[in-house]
Amino acid sequence: MKFCSECASPVSLSIPAGDNRPRYVCSNCAAIHYQNPKMVLGSIPVWERDGELKVLLCQRAIEPRHGYWTLPAGFMENAETTGEAAMRETEEEAGANIKLGPLFTLLNVARVHQVHMFYLAELLDLDFAPGVESLDVRLFSEAEIPWHDLAFPTIRTTLELFFADRVKIREGGGYGFHTQDITRTMRSDLDPS
Amino acid sequence: MKFCSECASPVSLSIPAGDNRPRYVCSNCAAIHYQNPKMVLGSIPVWERDGELKVLLCQRAIEPRHGYWTLPAGFMENAETTGEAAMRETEEEAGANIKLGPLFTLLNVARVHQVHMFYLAELLDLDFAPGVESLDVRLFSEAEIPWHDLAFPTIRTTLELFFADRVKIREGGGYGFHTQDITRTMRSDLDPS
Repeated sequence: MKFCSECASPVSLSIPAGDNRPRYVCSNCAAIHYQNPKMVLGSIPVWERDGELKVLLCQRAIEPRHGYWTLPAGFMENAETTGEAAMRETEEEAGANIKLGPLFTLLNVARVHQVHMFYLAELLDLDFAPGVESLDVRLFSEAEIPWHDLAFPTIRTTLELFFADRVKIREGGGYGFHTQDITRTMRSDLDPS
Repeated sequence: MKFCSECASPVSLSIPAGDNRPRYVCSNCAAIHYQNPKMVLGSIPVWERDGELKVLLCQRAIEPRHGYWTLPAGFMENAETTGEAAMRETEEEAGANIKLGPLFTLLNVARVHQVHMFYLAELLDLDFAPGVESLDVRLFSEAEIPWHDLAFPTIRTTLELFFADRVKIREGGGYGFHTQDITRTMRSDLDPS
């Protein structure tokens, strides 16, 4: 940030009165330009028939991580709720019709000023298709998940927690709600193999 | 937003290629200035001794809702986690030492482009004191909560859910995690009495 978005004068970093950290402050109109973390919302679209469970993943057509696989997710927009954002992103990236379930993960990625959240979701039909930000959209069983070609650590963590909860469900439990702070990068997250 | 924060040229609303909603786009350098919802993080500081439970509330020294009561909470900053933000706000507004528990509420306030989250917290001592943004900080039993003088609907909802879960705990249950979309304003939220 170099200029004030209200009056076009140069901004500089200084600590406003009553504040305790540097902000971009306008040299002319004194407007303070706060910068805050962003939310990334997505879903875990699940297709379950005859005892077999599959999860819908999208192959990214955009950077970062072009060609890698992700759960449908993206930046939350103004004037929508977290649930609406998860539904919209699933529609935009995977063309998928889902019934949204409860919030499943809330993952802090403080290094990049983001909070990622994923909702459980029931895939309602098989009429999905890649949107403009996806190369491909496919259903994966647990054994088929491309663990070494996942786009982001939060996707890996969410899928790991999801399949761990599936084990608990077979033992009579239910899905939990999970919060974690993610400090590793995707590269450090992968096995050395 | 009137001017580009990168080059100071005028911006105008238009739908960028590959996008589906209007953004502020620079007429000169083509920078796209996205606007996204903000997170407000806070805690429910609980003091429990000899079977008596009290919750710490702050009386706001700033607008909006000057003079009204709130749980300690504020905007999450870049480079911190949701938990760190809740701890920091509790320290700044109430001077309170807490041990953070699990996330308790996640409340969408889409009308003002915000998501409010509150963590359960154990108040570790009684050495609390109002920060610069608070007029007063006090412990309230359930019967003493100033329901008609609360600052925001999300404070009311979080306290209602908290005391409802306390009833469940007396019956052998535990605290839940609650998500809600808040569409009412504080005024419509109050009883006509």
